[in-house]
Parts: sequence; structure tokens; C-alpha cells
Amino acid sequence: MRIGAHYLDNGWCEFAVWAPFAERVSLILYSPDERTVAMQKEGEYWKTALDTVSPGTRYRYQIDRQTERADPASSYQPEGVHEASQVINHSAFAWSDTDWKGNGLPELILYEIHVGAFTQEGTFEAIIPRLDSLKQLGINAIEIMPVAQFPGERNWGYDGVYPFAVQNSYGGPEGLKKFVNECHRKGISVVLDVVYNHLGPEGNYLRDFGPYFSDSYRTPWGEAVNFDGPYSDEVRNFFIENALSWFQHYHIDGLRLDAIHGIYDMSAQPFLLELSERVREFSRQNGRAYYLIAESDLNDARVIRPHERGGFGLDASWNDDFHHALHTLLTEEKDLYYRDFGRIRDLGKSLTEGYVYSGQYSAFRKRKHGNDSSDIPADRFVVFAQNHDQTGNRMKGERLSSLVSFEALKLSAGSVMLSPYIPLLFMGEEYGETSPFLYFISHTDQGLVDAVRRGRKEEFKGYYGQGDPPDPQAVESFERSCLKWHLQDEQHHRTLRELYAELIQLRKTIPALAILDNTALRVISDEQQKILAMKRWRDGSRILVFFNFSKDDVYGPTLFLDEPWKKTLDSSDQRWSGPGTLLPASIQPGDEVTVRAESFALFINER
Amino acid sequence: MRIGAHYLDNGWCEFAVWAPFAERVSLILYSPDERTVAMQKEGEYWKTALDTVSPGTRYRYQIDRQTERADPASSYQPEGVHEASQVINHSAFAWSDTDWKGNGLPELILYEIHVGAFTQEGTFEAIIPRLDSLKQLGINAIEIMPVAQFPGERNWGYDGVYPFAVQNSYGGPEGLKKFVNECHRKGISVVLDVVYNHLGPEGNYLRDFGPYFSDSYRTPWGEAVNFDGPYSDEVRNFFIENALSWFQHYHIDGLRLDAIHGIYDMSAQPFLLELSERVREFSRQNGRAYYLIAESDLNDARVIRPHERGGFGLDASWNDDFHHALHTLLTEEKDLYYRDFGRIRDLGKSLTEGYVYSGQYSAFRKRKHGNDSSDIPADRFVVFAQNHDQTGNRMKGERLSSLVSFEALKLSAGSVMLSPYIPLLFMGEEYGETSPFLYFISHTDQGLVDAVRRGRKEEFKGYYGQGDPPDPQAVESFERSCLKWHLQDEQHHRTLRELYAELIQLRKTIPALAILDNTALRVISDEQQKILAMKRWRDGSRILVFFNFSKDDVYGPTLFLDEPWKKTLDSSDQRWSGPGTLLPASIQPGDEVTVRAESFALFINER
Repeated sequence: MRIGAHYLDNGWCEFAVWAPFAERVSLILYSPDERTVAMQKEGEYWKTALDTVSPGTRYRYQIDRQTERADPASSYQPEGVHEASQVINHSAFAWSDTDWKGNGLPELILYEIHVGAFTQEGTFEAIIPRLDSLKQLGINAIEIMPVAQFPGERNWGYDGVYPFAVQNSYGGPEGLKKFVNECHRKGISVVLDVVYNHLGPEGNYLRDFGPYFSDSYRTPWGEAVNFDGPYSDEVRNFFIENALSWFQHYHIDGLRLDAIHGIYDMSAQPFLLELSERVREFSRQNGRAYYLIAESDLNDARVIRPHERGGFGLDASWNDDFHHALHTLLTEEKDLYYRDFGRIRDLGKSLTEGYVYSGQYSAFRKRKHGNDSSDIPADRFVVFAQNHDQTGNRMKGERLSSLVSFEALKLSAGSVMLSPYIPLLFMGEEYGETSPFLYFISHTDQGLVDAVRRGRKEEFKGYYGQGDPPDPQAVESFERSCLKWHLQDEQHHRTLRELYAELIQLRKTIPALAILDNTALRVISDEQQKILAMKRWRDGSRILVFFNFSKDDVYGPTLFLDEPWKKTLDSSDQRWSGPGTLLPASIQPGDEVTVRAESFALFINER
Repeated sequence: MRIGAHYLDNGWCEFAVWAPFAERVSLILYSPDERTVAMQKEGEYWKTALDTVSPGTRYRYQIDRQTERADPASSYQPEGVHEASQVINHSAFAWSDTDWKGNGLPELILYEIHVGAFTQEGTFEAIIPRLDSLKQLGINAIEIMPVAQFPGERNWGYDGVYPFAVQNSYGGPEGLKKFVNECHRKGISVVLDVVYNHLGPEGNYLRDFGPYFSDSYRTPWGEAVNFDGPYSDEVRNFFIENALSWFQHYHIDGLRLDAIHGIYDMSAQPFLLELSERVREFSRQNGRAYYLIAESDLNDARVIRPHERGGFGLDASWNDDFHHALHTLLTEEKDLYYRDFGRIRDLGKSLTEGYVYSGQYSAFRKRKHGNDSSDIPADRFVVFAQNHDQTGNRMKGERLSSLVSFEALKLSAGSVMLSPYIPLLFMGEEYGETSPFLYFISHTDQGLVDAVRRGRKEEFKGYYGQGDPPDPQAVESFERSCLKWHLQDEQHHRTLRELYAELIQLRKTIPALAILDNTALRVISDEQQKILAMKRWRDGSRILVFFNFSKDDVYGPTLFLDEPWKKTLDSSDQRWSGPGTLLPASIQPGDEVTVRAESFALFINER
């Protein structure tokens, strides 16, 4: 069922809203003059169609002659979460991406952006001038953090309360369309982060319309969405229509589904399965693939298994275990969930099987965690050395650049980019941005602000050393989180960016790297020396990589040195502002080699 | 991890209890003299072993020098839920069923018993003299409603609070063992109903020991069990050990898992999967099959699909849809969930596919319900015309015998017994018991009693006509629910019993009925005439059944009358105290036939 305000082919504007318990629903239009129009009940929905509604008209719904609320499926909230909705004519935008079919999921090099903090202006349009630079880097997909209308002007986006409305302070629907259109013109896909597990705490009026929420479950972020209780069919319709609307009206190429472990659903036909089937159907109808990428804390391979094998059929999932394995090797941190990681073989397992926790006991979770993902194709996992969560959910929001050496930053780049998975970079990572990425909000409800402050303090008590987290409501927390683009002109930063570009280039051109396949991959993990050797192959193309996480120069494991290898890239090389390579330009069978501390080196053997 | 009190091979008695947060746990023994023994911490468990503990010794645990509690894994609570536990020497019982390997699940004819209401005495031992009569009827499996220690002496059993302890008023562990031993000597399997979705509200002290419960979910019956949160591994251990202990110590053949839709579990390795794998492993070790049968309100075929295909791997599931389809045809009731049923084709679908609701909208649930079970083998469904829930969860607890005619009772018998599924009879159903089966409790907590009373009233408001439900706490509610055995001597009751016996006999001997296969089965549903024709076949054996749910004599559908059929049984026959058959002894292709109102008739064609 289509919801919200939509222009029909005959020019009439149709309004449809779900309000199953209402006895009367009216549409209030605010221009040219304020008027109230009674809506007709159709099943659990209320509808009306009018021929006199101009694009830009503000409106609200009135429920049972009392409550006046913006449209839950509003496309635009020009004055924010507490004010009226605005009618948008989606077909008015002049798209120039008609031939665009999207980049294939396995080819993506993802780059995560927070629209507000990426540029000085904090808008969609302000990103456009940066696209060429990202393209030069090799990026072919931008993932934007949630843009659904949230309260205030500063927010990560996970407090959104109008899932269909594009944040006003970012430039609204028009801004997002312009941005996507430009991306597509440059061959860049756009993935949008959407939040279907809860709604934000301020400006959420959905419960005035119907049973959108469930009291059978409790999420960490507030009321659980009603995905399996009475009336849940139409709640599902709301979110499925939302997913499709991004593809349809905004030409978004894929969705990142935030924290699906917060989507509580015991039903025989889970929402996520229904969503993936509907998106697949939409893709078929449109002759191209739109994809769904889950963020999940469950380590449950069912999420990305096809339906026929008992799965939900999502296209891919973030793999946090890869991150944690890498992060702990780089930083030796043991706080919170990092206590479950820290061994070379954790990274080795992640490279070969996906999840590190595939059913064994997790000391952090105090229970067994995960299941076996070794049968999951490598192109169903997204990996990263940094992302908004792993940076911003630290007490002080430090990026890796503030935590480890320059050499280790390069090692981190190599670990992600030479992995058999889809890589994701967090904005600024490519040049070693030094700004933190802090948690920031701009709520108007003081009680809520205090609760968030308390929550953050509580969360980090006893972790990440002394002190309190910065105030999330303070404007400085946002301002400190913005990128400092000028850094790219400084030597080390420029070098790091060049290394990322080189790695992306190699990844796209060497067949053994380009094909995401962790079954044609072997690793040797030397726990004592803190070095990992990885071999990958594809037809005649073969590569060998040493990743040395030790602070010492160490011998490379010799097991893979049974064929001739030619050095292609060494992060310790002076070319990459390193201390200089210890590795020969080529290795013959039987040779022994020494790998620089905190470096990686790539060899190839093209037969 | 083994929990509770157990004798070791050397005669010592070992006590083990899970108390992860305790700083000190002691064992208090009450005989010969009271003494307190400090227990040793082993991981999250506390243990001690003593050489001076006689069977029958009473004991409690003392936590942190304060709280004194019976053993959560107590085998026996001789004085009820609030008093001490008793040490049981399980190896002392003289079993005489050494060669018993159990009846195969697909061969079972199940008979559900409430131990308290089945006999005057209300004990396990009192059932034993009745076994021969059940065997004569053709029953080869008794399913007993839960026997885990509950508060008071009258309870359905779903308020149990010591999952390992056998209800004292039923005869305790010794009584249950004697009963099972006798059943096995007579070739009767025993299935036990166990409740893993919640614990009863009175006498539940588990939370004093550890985080057995979760606040992430709410069940209709109280706190949800912690199957997926921190520390859940050992909560799972508690229930898995419980399942195995019934097999091991009591020689139970299978478990009926109560209301698994109340087992909230989002983990990647669901508890039910872990349980089924552990029971399968136990079966392998013991060279015979122990089985798990789910009760589920989810209509989710994943529950009974093998793990390899994304399922939980349980052996079978109750199929409520079959019941509802049949019940509404017999009674034309529309209350509560019955509003979703009432058509001949619902029963037809259930006979061919399993679930009637396989994804379509349910008006009662106000959402889509279920998924496709058409690939599920027929021997994974248990069906019934009555059971404790479908009888007792009516406002006045009426059995079918109080709701429909004698002819319809016979029709009901035929529908279940000639179905391709595992049949279950509710005690007394075979002779048309006229006592109701009411909801009864005997709590000591007055507030709780009042809450239960209010709950029952609320539940039935506006349904099942006027009046209030009988008082569940009143002793009369229990007494009225007990069987009146003498009824079996009266003509109609005796006839009905003979019909059940005949049907069971036919089911065991006619190949097309004996093999549970709903793929070798076709139905024709004539909605207008309210008649259903079912054909089943197996090699040369073929059967045709007409089920006429109409109050009129009607023509049988002719589609299946394309081969010669021989009449084997007609419920309207005078032999079954009916008005007399209208059907010829044999049918030739092209014949037309008339089927008596509210009757069924079985034909065979043995080629």
C-alpha cells in the first residue's frame, strides 16, 4: 500500500495514511489558505485525492478531531520534526542517470560519509565538488549515514523519526537527489543507511496513528517496532514502502540496514525475509540489482543465506569480527568487546571463514556467540578498519590515526584492501584524518539530553582510561568531528592517501585480488611473531601478503615460499614514507625473508 | 554440566549448583543431624561431594550466608515448592525394561493424560491398572501433562517451578518410574510434557541463584527465560540437562515441549536447535531414538525442518490448525481463534499441507500467519480433535461430547484416525467422557489466586455466551474435571470406544492408512454440501473416505468414484449405533452415492 502524499498521473495529489483505530481522519492543508478535508476510510487506511495541491504545500493529519500530526510517511519536514509536512512532487526532478545500472556489489569500494561532518557546509550539495577526488582515490560507492529527519541539526542520524523525510538541514529531498544524480554521472553508487529497529526519542508521533510499536520486546534504544504482533502487516508495509521509496524516488542503489539485531521478530515469515523478497522483486521489475546490506550483532549467517537454505536472503552483512580482530592487533586494546580479540589467528579466521565467533564462548557477551559462516561467499561481507561506530562509540571518538603509528595506519589499509571482502572506508580514513568522530546530538528536550549524557558516561565507566566523554549536546562535539581537508596536503597524510589509491588500483587489476573468494585463500598465523601470511589465487594469478603486526622486524613464515614471488608493494618502503624495506625485489623458493615492523608487503606470481 | 544431587560410582553424593554471582554457597543437610557444608566454586558452579549422604536426605542451599533455598535441580520436593529438596538415588530403581527400544514416532497412537484427573487417586500408580484397557483400545503411547513440582495439589502442571522434581502429590520420582516401567512392559511409550518457556508464579526461587530470566522479552505467563542473554549458556545447560534427565532417570521416550513460541531467542545458535542436537547425540549414544515434539503457535515449519535446511530439527509438532479446522466444522463455533476457520477446504488443506495458515492474513491475529509446511513429512505432525488446551481453555471446559451429537463424535474420531498424521486422543475422548476439563489451580498466594480468576474472566469476556468461568481455585473445578469411568459401560459410550479401537486397528493394518504420507493423498472439498472426500494410497493399497459434516444426507463427490471400492466402515451404520447406512457395500465406477448426515465412511480397493 502506497502511503504519504503522491501525485497521480492525472495531476491529482493522493494522500494515504494508516490509522486503524481512528474513527475520523482529516487532511489539513495550509496553503494557499488553510482548509480541512475529510479523508475516506479504506480498510485500515485513510485516503483522499485532490486536484488543487501544489508541490510545496504544507499539511498535517488530524486524528479524531483532536490530534494534529505531520505525516508519518512525510517526504519532507522543512521546519523539523515538530512542524508540518510538505508535499513533494518526486517526478519533477530532472534525472540524468537514465542508463545507470549501478556497480555490482562485489566490485564496491565503499566510503562512509556523515553528511553534516563531511564538509564545512554539511549538506548534500557540498559533497558534490569532492566526488572527483573520491573517484581519483578509487571509490565507487558512497554510503551515507542516515538522513531520515531527526530532531535538531546535529545528529548521527539514528534518532530519525520520519523515515521517508530527508533531513532539512542537509538540503532535503532536492539536495539528496542532486547528490545521487551527480554520483551516478561519475559512476559512483550510493548506499543509504536506514534504521528500521526503532525510532528516535524526540518527535516520534507514530503511536498516535497506530500500533507501530510492540511491548513484547525491549530494545536498547527504546520501544521495539511491531514486526510480529497484531497489525504488524501494515507496520511492515510502512518500512517496505520506505525501502522501495529510496530506490524509486532517490535512485539509491542499496540500503545498509542498521542493527538488525534490534528487529525483534518471532514470526514464521520474518520481516527481513519479506523485505529482501520485495526488494528482489523490485530489482527484477527494474532490470537491475538493488541491494540490502545488514549491520548485525548476531554473527548469524542465516541473515545472508538464501531463503531456500533457511536464510533471510540479504545480500551482504557488515563483519564486525574482522574489524575487532584487526583493531586489537593494531592497538592491543582490551576494553569492552575488544577483550574477545587480540590474536593473529582471529584475523586469520576472519579472512578465511568470516566470523571469528562462530559458536564459541565470548567473555564479553558471557555466552556462546555466532554460528558458522564458512560457507558464506566472501562477497557477502563488508569489512573495515574504521567506521562511524567503531570510532564514535569510543569514549573520546579517536580515529586510528590518534591511536597508532603511521606505519600501523598503512598496515591497517593493507589488511582491509587486500582482504577477500568488500572494503569500506570511513570518511577521512584515507588520509589519516586526525579529528575525532564524537557522538553528537541536538535535541530540544532537556530531560532527554541529560539522559543521553548520563547514558554515555555510564557506558564507558571503567573503560578507555580516565575522564568523562565529551558532552554530546555541545556544538563543539560536532564541530570537532568535522573533517580537516587541508591535512591532505601534508606529507604523511598525502602518502597514506596515495597508498589507499594504489591498493584500490591493485585490487581492481590483479585477478587474485579482484575476485572476492575466501576459499581460494590460505593463511598462516604466527602468534609468537605476530605475523600473518596470506596467499590468494585466481587462475594463473597468485598473490602473497605478509602482515607484520609486531613492533619488531621478524622473519616471514616460510611455508608459502615454495614458489618464486615478485614484490609489488611494501608499506615500509621509502616510497610510502617508511623506514625502508627489508624485503628483496623477488623471492626464490627456499629463501628466508625479514618483514619490517608494522608493515605489510604484497608479492605476486603471475604464471 | 551435571547439576543437582547425584550419587557417584564410589557411593559419594555430589551436589552441584549454578550460582555465578554468589560469593559463598553452602549445602545444608537436615539429616541425620542438621549440618552445613561449604561448597567449592568451579567456574560459575558450586560443588561438593560427601560420602555420608543417605538417599532421602533433605537439603537446601544457602547463598551468601543469607538466603536458604531448595535445589533448582531438585529431583524431589516431598513437602512442596516452599520446603527442602530430597536426595534421590536414581540408580536404585529396579527397571525391567532393559530391552525396550521405544515405539517409532510415526507409529504412535498418543493418549494425553492429566495424572491428577485421570483416576480417583490422582497418582501415577493408579494409572497402571488402566493400562491394559488402553492397550486394548490400541494406544501405544501415553503423553502425560507436566509433572514438574507445582504449588499445591491441583494444577494443570504449567505452573511448575522445579523442572527436575516429580510432583509429590502424584507419587514423586518413584511413582513415575513405576508407571513408566509398567508402560514399557506393555509396549507403551511415554511422552512427557515439559515447560521450558517460563516458570510458575509461586515457589519460583531460581532468580536467587542466577540470571535465569531475561528482561528483553515479555511472555504472556511471566518473565521470559534467559536463552540468549549474558550467562544464557548455563541456563540452557539447566534445561538441556532437564530434558536428558527424563530420558536417563525416568526412561521417558519423548518430550512434548510446551508453547515454544514463548521461548524467545534471537541467538545465532537457538536453544531449540542446541536441544535437538543434544537429544540426537544422546539417542545415538543409547542406540535408540528419543524424540522432541513441539507445541507451537507460530505455524513455522522451520521448527521441524532439519538443521541443514535452516530448521531447528525437532522431530514433530502439534498442528493446531488441523484441530481448529475440524472443530469449527463440527461445532460451527466462531469464538476467538475459531473465527479464522470453518470451511471444508481448511480441513482439506490441513490434510494435504499441514498448516492451514501458511502466510495468509488471520483475522483473529490481525496479521499474516505461518509459512508453507507442504514439504514437511506427515509424520512430523501430531493432530487431535481434543486436548487439554482445546477443552480446558474454553470458558466452561466442555469436551466435544457436550457440544455435538453422537454422530458428530464418531465423525470426529474418523477425521483424526484416518488422517495421515500422528493422532492424539485426550483422556476420556475415546468413550465420549461428559465431564468438562476445567482450568484448576491450588495456589496458596491469595493475590495470585485473584489475579488468575480475573485473568480467566477477562479472557472470555464477550465469548462463549453468558456467564463467568468456574472458579479455578475451587476444589470443585478439579473434581468436576475427573474422569467418570463407569460411563464406558453405557451403550453409546461403549460403542464410541469400540469405534476408536476399530479405527486404530484399521490404521495399523491397512497399508494406505499405516504409512503417514500426505503426498500420496488427494482431497475434494465440497464447500456447499459440507462434504470432503479423501483418497490415500500406498503401493496396491488404496482407501477412500467420505467425511460428511453436513446435517443432511448428501451426495458424495463422484470424482474419486472411477474405480471399484469396497465399504469397510460406515459410522452411520447400526453397528455403530447410527441411523443406518445409505451406502452400498461396494461401489462400481460411475455409481452415485449418498452419505449420511454427520458421518464418515471408509472404502478400500486392494488391488
